[in-house]
Amino acid sequence: MAFEVELAENRYGKSRVRLHKVVRNGAVHDLYEWNVQVLLQGDFVTAHVDGDNSKILATDTMKNTVYSRAKESKATSMEEYAKELIEFLHSRNPQVSHVQVVIEQALWKRMVIDGKPHDHSFMHGSNEVQTTTVERTKTGPWSIVSGLNGMHILKTTKSAFEGYIKESLTTLPETKDRIFGTVVQAQWTYTKDSLDFNAARVKLREAMLKCFAGHDSKSVQETLYAMAKAAIEVTPEIDDIKLTLPNKHSLLFDLKRFGQENNNEIFVPTDEPHGTIEARVKRKK
Amino acid sequence: MAFEVELAENRYGKSRVRLHKVVRNGAVHDLYEWNVQVLLQGDFVTAHVDGDNSKILATDTMKNTVYSRAKESKATSMEEYAKELIEFLHSRNPQVSHVQVVIEQALWKRMVIDGKPHDHSFMHGSNEVQTTTVERTKTGPWSIVSGLNGMHILKTTKSAFEGYIKESLTTLPETKDRIFGTVVQAQWTYTKDSLDFNAARVKLREAMLKCFAGHDSKSVQETLYAMAKAAIEVTPEIDDIKLTLPNKHSLLFDLKRFGQENNNEIFVPTDEPHGTIEARVKRKK
Amino acid sequence: MAFEVELAENRYGKSRVRLHKVVRNGAVHDLYEWNVQVLLQGDFVTAHVDGDNSKILATDTMKNTVYSRAKESKATSMEEYAKELIEFLHSRNPQVSHVQVVIEQALWKRMVIDGKPHDHSFMHGSNEVQTTTVERTKTGPWSIVSGLNGMHILKTTKSAFEGYIKESLTTLPETKDRIFGTVVQAQWTYTKDSLDFNAARVKLREAMLKCFAGHDSKSVQETLYAMAKAAIEVTPEIDDIKLTLPNKHSLLFDLKRFGQENNNEIFVPTDEPHGTIEARVKRKK
Amino acid sequence: MAFEVELAENRYGKSRVRLHKVVRNGAVHDLYEWNVQVLLQGDFVTAHVDGDNSKILATDTMKNTVYSRAKESKATSMEEYAKELIEFLHSRNPQVSHVQVVIEQALWKRMVIDGKPHDHSFMHGSNEVQTTTVERTKTGPWSIVSGLNGMHILKTTKSAFEGYIKESLTTLPETKDRIFGTVVQAQWTYTKDSLDFNAARVKLREAMLKCFAGHDSKSVQETLYAMAKAAIEVTPEIDDIKLTLPNKHSLLFDLKRFGQENNNEIFVPTDEPHGTIEARVKRKK
Repeated sequence: MAFEVELAENRYGKSRVRLHKVVRNGAVHDLYEWNVQVLLQGDFVTAHVDGDNSKILATDTMKNTVYSRAKESKATSMEEYAKELIEFLHSRNPQVSHVQVVIEQALWKRMVIDGKPHDHSFMHGSNEVQTTTVERTKTGPWSIVSGLNGMHILKTTKSAFEGYIKESLTTLPETKDRIFGTVVQAQWTYTKDSLDFNAARVKLREAMLKCFAGHDSKSVQETLYAMAKAAIEVTPEIDDIKLTLPNKHSLLFDLKRFGQENNNEIFVPTDEPHGTIEARVKRKK
Repeated sequence: MAFEVELAENRYGKSRVRLHKVVRNGAVHDLYEWNVQVLLQGDFVTAHVDGDNSKILATDTMKNTVYSRAKESKATSMEEYAKELIEFLHSRNPQVSHVQVVIEQALWKRMVIDGKPHDHSFMHGSNEVQTTTVERTKTGPWSIVSGLNGMHILKTTKSAFEGYIKESLTTLPETKDRIFGTVVQAQWTYTKDSLDFNAARVKLREAMLKCFAGHDSKSVQETLYAMAKAAIEVTPEIDDIKLTLPNKHSLLFDLKRFGQENNNEIFVPTDEPHGTIEARVKRKK
Repeated sequence: MAFEVELAENRYGKSRVRLHKVVRNGAVHDLYEWNVQVLLQGDFVTAHVDGDNSKILATDTMKNTVYSRAKESKATSMEEYAKELIEFLHSRNPQVSHVQVVIEQALWKRMVIDGKPHDHSFMHGSNEVQTTTVERTKTGPWSIVSGLNGMHILKTTKSAFEGYIKESLTTLPETKDRIFGTVVQAQWTYTKDSLDFNAARVKLREAMLKCFAGHDSKSVQETLYAMAKAAIEVTPEIDDIKLTLPNKHSLLFDLKRFGQENNNEIFVPTDEPHGTIEARVKRKK
Repeated sequence: MAFEVELAENRYGKSRVRLHKVVRNGAVHDLYEWNVQVLLQGDFVTAHVDGDNSKILATDTMKNTVYSRAKESKATSMEEYAKELIEFLHSRNPQVSHVQVVIEQALWKRMVIDGKPHDHSFMHGSNEVQTTTVERTKTGPWSIVSGLNGMHILKTTKSAFEGYIKESLTTLPETKDRIFGTVVQAQWTYTKDSLDFNAARVKLREAMLKCFAGHDSKSVQETLYAMAKAAIEVTPEIDDIKLTLPNKHSLLFDLKRFGQENNNEIFVPTDEPHGTIEARVKRKK
């Protein structure tokens, strides 16, 4: 009996192309750090089946393209730069049907020296990265999904967890007051392809933080929903947002065994296991 | 104007529940290390919208369930254990419509002392993990997707890359002989829900390795396709497999500048940037 | 022939004891995150040679001690807390001759919401940690070495590297203007055991940053020396400081091949290989 | 009052210089992966104080030296290669008084295909690395300290912990039977500078493993001492060895709460906190 296989889907490209871009406005410099991934889909069946590379754009060439385009780009947001990159790749590669560019932007903060912002010195911020995934077929509409990852936040009170199911394997005690720590991952989808991406991002992020701080939490689920709602409320350019909030447990240390009282003062922060709470919330139409 | 949002999708559970299970066959022990994630979907709208936890199974209880079920289980594969866990959770939680269990199995190898396998001493192997994602709605069919991740392999010859597109941003020289290193990620979907999962896994993995070693590679794409084909060929219980093969470049170091010849002897292994090649290959029907 | 060995040095203890301490000043909370290591030396020969545990304080008990003492402590600096922990352990363990406590403090910043510092919400800062290593024999003087690690800073100009040795293996071009990025590790030794550790730390750290930003660098070595000098200058309580400044190279990307000019705009940040520059600088007596 | 500082110690060099070396014996290839660090000490005061680079060997040149020397080297051990590198650097740099080379060797294992070792295909092993630190002043004797790091081993029985101090903060229950897992770090100092380093290493490592597996452990301390003794016994070329054995706790999960018995079957492996046990053992003279 004949045994045969065929290619279902495929894509390929270059990952972790890291870029520092320095923009020099006279003595005052701006610094961007982007980590770029480019992935192509297209007419690559013979490459897989026959080892025919004639339609293959080398991933090394994609890397060169990232740097060369960054030099020419006037974009001030990574979303705009990603769009430029995609248009450039489509224009030169008829065999490509779909280009996806993913960018992570690291956090560099201008140093403040003697109370004044310094011209050309920067300090790396937290592990939080700003993200975007931009993609397009040759002639179709843009898909622009921006987000952030690694935003590690914590509140020391105004978080309860009560009223959940009690069954034979339940040992967790109810609490009216616990530490709530999480590392936010968010993705939101723009309904337009042209807007002030940086301004929208700042407003959305601040709305989530304000909600987190002010919310009287009954569960991670309730806070997630409230944060998502707050994000949509301040961002007319999006209709939905997906949030993933791991519950990074800080466990109350049992001091009673030593005759001490622990009034929510001494905790053991843990990385594993952790709760995983995720949901997508959308604007009602 | 009214502003309203609603819950689109949601799921929650516990991640990174780590487990050592020791099975004692008299003096000879077996050791399993599993890293388990449980995710539930179901009737959780009020939990998000109203902070009503009455239908919430605490993620801490899920953690307890993982350990308690591991004790009772006679399963010798993680796929079978995942199925047991899912059935148990469905049976006790009418509010849950869908359970997904993801397990990663770490590699522990029995020590060989004086040429003999030791009864109870083990050495941790490489970072390669065996994986499975098992899921089911309350009454629907099983979905069982197994795989592996982190299988770091390399061949020092029989890998070329020629004949690709030359354009104005191309600087990569063609080569008839390069190092080919990759860290394989694979996922295959079983078409049956009851089989000898461990035996199938061993055979499939060995077929991929034999193909990688013997293949005269014209590109990562060609080798990926050949490995996928080899995997399907030896595994009647699957119809498709998805492979991701990052191209972990080992760059030939330029010794000519120092009057030395580099006959494919001295390379710089790099982690970034790296190529990313992925495809799904399926059995032709 | 007799074959004999003996114990030369030994120490043991508990590492990575993680602690969240919440100090509640009414509605306004302070949050500390400490990662504590306790190491003991003492009369432990029979433990090693004979398996006699009668003088062994279990490392689990050390862990309990860390949490129990944290509850009682009024210390506002980790240096003071470390001293308390050491005194406590010495007082209860006559078999112990020497206690060392190492603490890393993570960076949590109070959130600012609507322009006001929030009472109980915090955001994790960068990977920079504040460190201290405090130790004492039973009756000897205190050794207090504080420092920091992971302070990732970068300047986009005012850094040159010229005039170094040119030999047959030299390929690096001289430059009058490069990116200078580094991840500072510092340790300074206090000459007193009682002072305002937090205030000294803030002043010293700011002096180093100001020096880094303002310095017209001819080499990492020169900048390191200047930063060390600045630190000693503002800190009468120390006589020396050791700095390690990896040179995290951002390589100018070669755009000339594509007919583009790169006026110090487009760089490839790299993690490896990296320069390692370290020195200890001391006050002249 | 005059404020003055001076340079106490300093050294500099290049870290994380990664190297793949392929040795081609006809069709059969050998693969080495080394991660090299070179650190120099010498006459570098003016470099620090005056920004005078005239005696500075650029760290980029050191990197080139590593690759160029690797090409010429016939060494089959990293210790011999490190010695060659040091001699080369001393011979060309009169301003250098001391060179240290640290090498980590990654584990690559030849693939076995259809029962036969493959000519040119390899699989990455565990995270265990073989290490060496070789150093020499211009004319002094060699210092060669070899070792290993990341050897993760575990035994499921024959490990007890009893008879330790019980005090008011003790909560750990005694046990006659626990899991003993550790990640061995070892350094041994050679008393000769010329020997078959690879053969000595293999024998020493196997002696430690055999001891670990066979030892009826009363504490990590006792096992550490026994392993060190075993290492010295089989290695006439060393007089001492330092071992660090973190106690990677696998905690017995409490199943009694659920009416289940846990006969040392179900454990929670943890990464933090962990015990740290270290000692140096030496040959009695």
